Amino acid sequence: MAFKRTTAQINRYRLMERFEVNILGCGSALPTTKHFLSSQVVNLRDKLYMIDCGEGSQLQFRAMKLKFQRLNHIFISHLHGDHCFGLPGLISTLGLLGRTSDLHIYAQPDAPIVFQPLLDYFCKQLPYKVIFHPFHPARNELIFEDRTLKVSTIPLKHRVPSAGFLLEEKPKSPHIIREMIDFYQVPVSRIHAIKNGMDYITPEGEIIPHQRLTRPAEPAHRYAYCSDTAYYEKIIPIIEGVDVLYHEATFGEEDLARAKETFHSSARQAASIAKAANVKKLVLGHFSARYPDETILLNEAREIFPNTILANEKLLINLSI
Amino acid sequence: MAFKRTTAQINRYRLMERFEVNILGCGSALPTTKHFLSSQVVNLRDKLYMIDCGEGSQLQFRAMKLKFQRLNHIFISHLHGDHCFGLPGLISTLGLLGRTSDLHIYAQPDAPIVFQPLLDYFCKQLPYKVIFHPFHPARNELIFEDRTLKVSTIPLKHRVPSAGFLLEEKPKSPHIIREMIDFYQVPVSRIHAIKNGMDYITPEGEIIPHQRLTRPAEPAHRYAYCSDTAYYEKIIPIIEGVDVLYHEATFGEEDLARAKETFHSSARQAASIAKAANVKKLVLGHFSARYPDETILLNEAREIFPNTILANEKLLINLSI
Repeated sequence: MAFKRTTAQINRYRLMERFEVNILGCGSALPTTKHFLSSQVVNLRDKLYMIDCGEGSQLQFRAMKLKFQRLNHIFISHLHGDHCFGLPGLISTLGLLGRTSDLHIYAQPDAPIVFQPLLDYFCKQLPYKVIFHPFHPARNELIFEDRTLKVSTIPLKHRVPSAGFLLEEKPKSPHIIREMIDFYQVPVSRIHAIKNGMDYITPEGEIIPHQRLTRPAEPAHRYAYCSDTAYYEKIIPIIEGVDVLYHEATFGEEDLARAKETFHSSARQAASIAKAANVKKLVLGHFSARYPDETILLNEAREIFPNTILANEKLLINLSI
Repeated sequence: MAFKRTTAQINRYRLMERFEVNILGCGSALPTTKHFLSSQVVNLRDKLYMIDCGEGSQLQFRAMKLKFQRLNHIFISHLHGDHCFGLPGLISTLGLLGRTSDLHIYAQPDAPIVFQPLLDYFCKQLPYKVIFHPFHPARNELIFEDRTLKVSTIPLKHRVPSAGFLLEEKPKSPHIIREMIDFYQVPVSRIHAIKNGMDYITPEGEIIPHQRLTRPAEPAHRYAYCSDTAYYEKIIPIIEGVDVLYHEATFGEEDLARAKETFHSSARQAASIAKAANVKKLVLGHFSARYPDETILLNEAREIFPNTILANEKLLINLSI
């Protein structure tokens, strides 16, 4: 039985389903005229979660028309400047915008040691609290959880301690079929139980199976961010089967020696990880400034893992469709 | 007597005369999709001097195709984040580019206290030295001098200690008239003395006045940067008659109360200063994010001082023509 939904219902549905990754910057340490420094924002049902915050992230955030008041959580992969020098400016801007709710920053234990003195000096009258949550980058552990999302760390292999992040949507509730609820005159007070798998018993004693009153929930999505890292097979079981894997691909095959030396990955290595982990889609990023055109990286990766795309500033990756 | 110069001579002349101001950012504390944060680069005969370094300055520096290796001196007006949060990223980038020569930063005594720990953590293997030169913002004093340029501080009036900068080109040497030198067969060894005002005496004892052998030097130019500041008449004698004055004009007349409260200037106030100081040209900048179109500021200023323009990202102001 198919029911036609109203535009309002469709919009609400879209909002409820939204799981998007906004690429704010995908260059490596040296910014270019083409790429900003590492930063992205995951939009899960209109709540924003930032991953890394290189210099200029707040400019890109605004340019992508994201809403500052929706941002409450920032995850920093490692303490190299190109992944976190945008923090002081962003924190300062949020204060100027009159923010009052806490801002949570998940980073390694050194982060508050290096940033707090700067904030103490420059952001004395901040109208909100910045709370650092330290995590240990060598462990695969849950570092954040709310009603809809779980974030765990993915230990990576880099010159300094570095961790990727696995963002997992929690299982969703099935959808009530409004017309069936009306037909059986189910009281509102029972809806919650039905969505959680309880059958409905009519006043006449008839048992209506919950499957008849609901449509199945959409699948929960999973996104993995792995940057910066050398080729590192230990991440494979952690990211197994994710919908989208963002994996750094700083270099092409001809610069493999340089990749090894600097603990970065080549595009082929990123693709090998994607293939071994059976991910659905691979996004390459963290491009070295030496490639005026990253098509060479894309082609190298696609030879191993065809469903690969290049990250780019202002790219929006939709996991929910 | 007019001599025709070759293209090479003209190019060399242009380089020798170059005094340009590149606007990298002219927004105020809140960045917008239109404006970057405060930063500009003065190009004097292909040596670059940066004034202020808000977040994203290194991106704009590159976008304007300026050469990193020509930059040796940075002047920071005051320690608000929108004027200096770009320093760590720029310093880090210069290191990655393999710089070996010292970088000199002129700022208030607190600057190394707040930035050095960050540099110690993030830029451990910098292949060059960052040298902080503290100055006292309440004094009008010479803080930098080389063969062609003098830079002195202009005490300003802001919520925190703040200083503008007066950049003065040193007097130039007159130009040798090649044809006259050939005609009188002046030895090369005498050229320097003649340019410095000595007459030439031929082997026959004839005195050739130096004015006959040279064309007068072009006038030396002066540029003043005054941001951030409230309306402050004490700066007038210091900036008297400069070729170009960049003066902050954060607000329009309708927000005068806000300007006063935050120790910023209105466009009219900037124009009043320009008029009283008999400057040749006024450039307004440091615009509040509240004005989607700054024409209102321009019009208010022009009522008092007609030769006013608005700063804008990537604007190049040429003082030498």
